[in-house]
Amino acid sequence: MSQYQPPIADIAFALEHVVGYPDIAKLPGFEHADLDTVVELLDQCGEFMAEAVAPLNRQGDVQGSHLQPDGTVKTPDGFKEAYQQYVDAGWGAVPLPEQYGGGGFPRTVGLAIQEMFNSANLAFSLCPLLTQGAIDALLHYGSDELKDRYLPKMVSGEWTGTMNLTEPQAGSDVGALTTKAVQNADGSYAITGQKIFITYGDHDMAEQIIHLVLARTPGAPEGTRGISCFIVPKYLVNDDGSLGARNPVETVSLEHKMGIHASPTCVLSYENATGYLIGEENKGMRIMFVMMNAARLGVGAQGLAVAERAYQQSLEYAQDRRQGQAIGAAGASSAIIEFPDVRRMLMTQRASIAALRYLLLLDASYVDSSTNDPDPAVRARADEIVGLLTPICKSFGTDLGNELTSLALQIHGGMGFIEETGAAQHVRDIRIAAIYEGTNGIQAADLVGRKLGIRGGASIMEFHATMREIDAELAAAGPDFALVREELDRQFTALETATKWMLKTGLGDPNSVLAGSSPYLRMWGLCTSGWMLARAAVAAAKTDDARLAQEQLVLARFYAQQLLPQCASLLGAATAGADDLFALDAHSLAGASFKVNS
Amino acid sequence: MSQYQPPIADIAFALEHVVGYPDIAKLPGFEHADLDTVVELLDQCGEFMAEAVAPLNRQGDVQGSHLQPDGTVKTPDGFKEAYQQYVDAGWGAVPLPEQYGGGGFPRTVGLAIQEMFNSANLAFSLCPLLTQGAIDALLHYGSDELKDRYLPKMVSGEWTGTMNLTEPQAGSDVGALTTKAVQNADGSYAITGQKIFITYGDHDMAEQIIHLVLARTPGAPEGTRGISCFIVPKYLVNDDGSLGARNPVETVSLEHKMGIHASPTCVLSYENATGYLIGEENKGMRIMFVMMNAARLGVGAQGLAVAERAYQQSLEYAQDRRQGQAIGAAGASSAIIEFPDVRRMLMTQRASIAALRYLLLLDASYVDSSTNDPDPAVRARADEIVGLLTPICKSFGTDLGNELTSLALQIHGGMGFIEETGAAQHVRDIRIAAIYEGTNGIQAADLVGRKLGIRGGASIMEFHATMREIDAELAAAGPDFALVREELDRQFTALETATKWMLKTGLGDPNSVLAGSSPYLRMWGLCTSGWMLARAAVAAAKTDDARLAQEQLVLARFYAQQLLPQCASLLGAATAGADDLFALDAHSLAGASFKVNS
Repeated sequence: MSQYQPPIADIAFALEHVVGYPDIAKLPGFEHADLDTVVELLDQCGEFMAEAVAPLNRQGDVQGSHLQPDGTVKTPDGFKEAYQQYVDAGWGAVPLPEQYGGGGFPRTVGLAIQEMFNSANLAFSLCPLLTQGAIDALLHYGSDELKDRYLPKMVSGEWTGTMNLTEPQAGSDVGALTTKAVQNADGSYAITGQKIFITYGDHDMAEQIIHLVLARTPGAPEGTRGISCFIVPKYLVNDDGSLGARNPVETVSLEHKMGIHASPTCVLSYENATGYLIGEENKGMRIMFVMMNAARLGVGAQGLAVAERAYQQSLEYAQDRRQGQAIGAAGASSAIIEFPDVRRMLMTQRASIAALRYLLLLDASYVDSSTNDPDPAVRARADEIVGLLTPICKSFGTDLGNELTSLALQIHGGMGFIEETGAAQHVRDIRIAAIYEGTNGIQAADLVGRKLGIRGGASIMEFHATMREIDAELAAAGPDFALVREELDRQFTALETATKWMLKTGLGDPNSVLAGSSPYLRMWGLCTSGWMLARAAVAAAKTDDARLAQEQLVLARFYAQQLLPQCASLLGAATAGADDLFALDAHSLAGASFKVNS
Repeated sequence: MSQYQPPIADIAFALEHVVGYPDIAKLPGFEHADLDTVVELLDQCGEFMAEAVAPLNRQGDVQGSHLQPDGTVKTPDGFKEAYQQYVDAGWGAVPLPEQYGGGGFPRTVGLAIQEMFNSANLAFSLCPLLTQGAIDALLHYGSDELKDRYLPKMVSGEWTGTMNLTEPQAGSDVGALTTKAVQNADGSYAITGQKIFITYGDHDMAEQIIHLVLARTPGAPEGTRGISCFIVPKYLVNDDGSLGARNPVETVSLEHKMGIHASPTCVLSYENATGYLIGEENKGMRIMFVMMNAARLGVGAQGLAVAERAYQQSLEYAQDRRQGQAIGAAGASSAIIEFPDVRRMLMTQRASIAALRYLLLLDASYVDSSTNDPDPAVRARADEIVGLLTPICKSFGTDLGNELTSLALQIHGGMGFIEETGAAQHVRDIRIAAIYEGTNGIQAADLVGRKLGIRGGASIMEFHATMREIDAELAAAGPDFALVREELDRQFTALETATKWMLKTGLGDPNSVLAGSSPYLRMWGLCTSGWMLARAAVAAAKTDDARLAQEQLVLARFYAQQLLPQCASLLGAATAGADDLFALDAHSLAGASFKVNS
C-alpha cells in the first residue's frame, strides 16, 4: 500500500493562481493568513496527516469500532492516541474563531486541511467534522452562556460533537421525527427518543461528547416547523467547567457498514436526558441548515479526498506493475502505465480530481467572501453563489468519489479486489458520501427547488455569465486553447438551454423539474469542472513555469475533449419531463407483463 | 431483504419475440428444445434457484469460505447440501452434450439458466461456471480417452472444474507464466508451480476437482506460443473410474476479498502433480481461448444478473419505504417510488437490464447458430458476430453491473450502506466481474485489436448495416416510435464515425486505436442496447398485448432519450488519439510540478 503524499503543490497552485486566495487573505479578519503562512501551515498539516493519521487507515478498517459489554464504544488501536496528537497540534481549531481559541483562518484553508485529513483516514476524520458542525450551530444560534460553557473545549477538540437528526421513520424527511423535549422546572429540557445513524455517537477518544439533538416540544407544529434544537452533553457540565453526572444517553448498537468501519455509527437512546435549547423553540431546522451547508461542502471534499488517495495508490501501482509489452517499448515487459487504457484511467482521475479541488476551493472562497467581505453586496452575492455551488460540490464530488475510486481499483486488476491491497477500502469507504448529509437526489432537488429560482432566476443566469467570462481569456491565450474554448462554448450552451427550460417549466410543473434534477446537476458539475480547469490553464500560462503551463493545458484539453461532452448528452434527460418516469406502474417495473406461454 | 423473483416473463418474451429463439429451436440438434419446453424448464429452474440457492446468498457473504488447519476448504453452511441438490436436479447439464449425459439444449437456454443462477447467488454459481469452462476445453481438444474418463462426472456436476492461468507475475500477460510440466515415463506430466486467483481451487462440495492448468514443457518457446494445457485431477482416477491417490496440489491460502466471500479464491501449489496433456504441446492458449470466450459471455451475464437481483430489491424497498410527501400525493407520507428522482433510478435500472438481457441472449443465439446451423456461411457469419458481441457483453455488461447495483444501493438511502440490508453485497460481489476473465480494458483491446479488422473491416461494417435495418421497422411502426428512430439514427452515425476512424487509423497507429478503445466499446454497448430495446418495442407492438407494447415502447423511448445520447458524447474520447494520454510524465501525473512558495 502506498504512503499518502499530501498534494501541497496542487493545493498551493490552486490557492495562488486559480481561486484567488491572495484576495481572500486581504479581507478584514484574515490579514494574518497570507498565502506564505498558509502554505507553510498546510505543509506541516500534511506531514501530520501523512505520518500520524494515514497509517491507521487500513488497520481501522480491519478492526473497526465495537460496542463493549459495558456499553462504551472502543475505537481501533491507535485512534485515541492519534486523536490526542491531533488535539495537541490544534489542527481542528485552525479555521475557527479566535475568540474561542481558534486560529481564525479562512474556510478556504479549513477545506484544504479537511481534504488532507479525509485522504489520510476518512473514518477517523468524521469525528472532528461532526464536531465542527456542532460548533457552527452553537456559534450562530447559541446563547453566550452556552457558547462560553461549551465552545472552548469543542474548538480545542478536547470535547467532540455529534448531529442527531435521523430516526427510523425520519431520514430524508426530517420533519417526521418524534423525539420529545419537555421543559424542566429549571429551564432545561428532558429529551426522550431514539436516534439512528449517529456518527461517533459514542467513542473513547475524548472525555466528553456534545450531542446536538433535534426534538419536538409538546404541542409543536407538525413537520419541520415544529422542530427544536438542543444541546445534550454526554456528561452534565458543572459551573466550574468540570464534568458532572452522566446524562441518560445510551448506545443501543453500532451498525455493520460497507465501509468507514472505524467510525462508530450509533443507535442512541435518550431517556429523559437533560438538554439545553439552542435559539428558539420550533426554529431547529434553521440551525440544522447552518450545520448542513458547511457539512455538505465538507462531504464533497470527502469525495475529492478519497479519490486523491486512491489515485495516488493506483499511480504508484501502475508504475510498479509490469505486464506484457507496450507498443514501441523495449525490454521484456512494460510497466502498465505505458498502456493507453491505463493512461486513460489515470488521466481521467487526475483531471477530474484537479477540477474538483479547484471547484471546492472556489466554493469555500465564496464562503469566506460571504462572511468577511466589507461590502454587503459582495457578501450577498457570494452567499448566493455558495448556495448554488454547494449542492453541486456535494453531489458531483461524491459521485466522482465513487467513480474515480472504482477506476483506481480497476488499475490494480485482480489485486484490487483483494482487501490487503487497500484499493477496495477506498471504494467501500466513500460509498456513503453520496447518501449522508442529504442524498445526492436531495441535493439535486435543492438545486432546482431552492437555488434555481432565486431572484426569479437572475441569480443563476448571472453565474452563467460569470462562467462565460473565460471565453475572452481563452481567446487571448492563443490557438493552443482553441479546442477548450470551442468545447466549453458548446457545453455552456447546452447547460444554459437546460437552465432556461427549468426556469420556464418551474413552478407550473415541479415534478418535471425534479425529474430532470439529477442529470441537470451533473451537467453543472461537468461544466464547472471544465471551467475551473480552463481557468487553471489560463492562469498557469501566465506564470513563468512552462512545465506547469503545459500540464494544466493538457488537463483542460483532455477534460474538454473527452469528459466534458457528457454534459450535452444529458440535456435530453434533464428536459424530458416526468411522463416517461411515471409511465410504468410497479407491475410493469417488476417486468411481469408478458404472459408466459400465451 | 427481498425474495428473488426469477424474471421468467422477461426472459420468455425475449426468447420468443426479441432474439428469435423459435428459429434456434428449429436447428438440427435442438428439435427437442422448443419454446414451450424451454419456458417450462426455465420456470422450474427459477423456482429451484429462488428456493434452494438464493436464500444462502447473504449467509455465504457473512460466513465466507475458510481454509481449515488440515488444508481443506470449508464452504459456508448449506452450500454443500445445495450443491448436491443442484447436481441431483441436473441443472448444470442442461446445455451440455447428450453424449456425456447432458440435456443438449442450446447455449441460449444455458445463458438464461446462468442468469438466474448468478442472481440467486453469484459466489455459489461460480463453481459450476468454472466447471463448464473446463468441460468446454475437454470437449473441443481432449482425446476420447480423457473425455470418457472425466466428462460424464463433470457434466453431471459430481466433479467440479477449475481454470489455472494466473501466476503472480502473469495476470493479463498469461505468456509470462512459469509453471513447469516435465513428461514422465508413462506419458503423463509432472506439474510444478504456483497458481493464484483459482476460483473454487478447493472446496468441500464435491468429491473430486479437475484442474485445468497452463504450464510450460522444457524448451518451450517464450510467451504464449510455449504454453501447454493439462488436466490435473485432485485425486488420480483409476481405470475403473474410482478415485485413487491424492495428487500433490496444496491450497496455500485463500484471498480476503471485497466480495463473493463464499467463493474460495485459492493460491494453489503444484509439486510434481500428475497431469495429462490436452491436445498438443505449446497449443494451450488455443484451448484457453475456447474456455475464455464462453466464460466472457458468462461474466457479462453476471453483470446482468446481479443488477437484476439488486434492482428487484430496490424496487421493493421503493414501494415500502415512506418518506415525505410527493407532489400531488394524498396522505401524510408517500412511498419513495412516487418521487421523480427515485423513479429515474428505477427506470435506468429497468431499461438497462432489459437491454442487456436482450443483448446477451442475442449473443448466445449467435453462438447456437455458429455451432448448429447447417449452412457453413451462416455458421461463419454467426461466429464473427459472436466475436464482436462477446467483448461488448462482457465489458459493458459488467460496467453496468457496477453502475446499476450502485443505483440500487442509493435508493435505499442510509440503509443501503448497512450490510444487513443486502444492497451493499451486490455492489461488492459484482465488482470483480469487470476484472476477471480479462479486464474490461483487455476486452476493449480485443474489440479493436482482433475483431475490428476482420475481413478488412467488412465484418464490423456489415453489423452496422444489420443494426440499421431497424430504421425501416421503426418508420413503419408509426409516430410513437419517431423519437427512438431519430435518436438511434443519430447515435448509429456517431458510432459509425468512430468505427471508420478506427479502421482508418488502424495498424498505422495502434496506440491511438487502443487509446480510444474503452470509450469506443462503451459506444457499442449503448448503441446495441438502444437497438435491442427498439427491436423489443417493435416486436411487442406486433403482439395483441397492449400493455406489453406500451411498456416496451416506454423503455425504448426512455433509453433513447435519456441514456443513449452518451454514445455521441464519447466520440471525442474514442477518436482523440494517444497524444494527450501520454503528454504528462509520472512526475506531472503525481501533481508535483508547482513550486510551492516560488
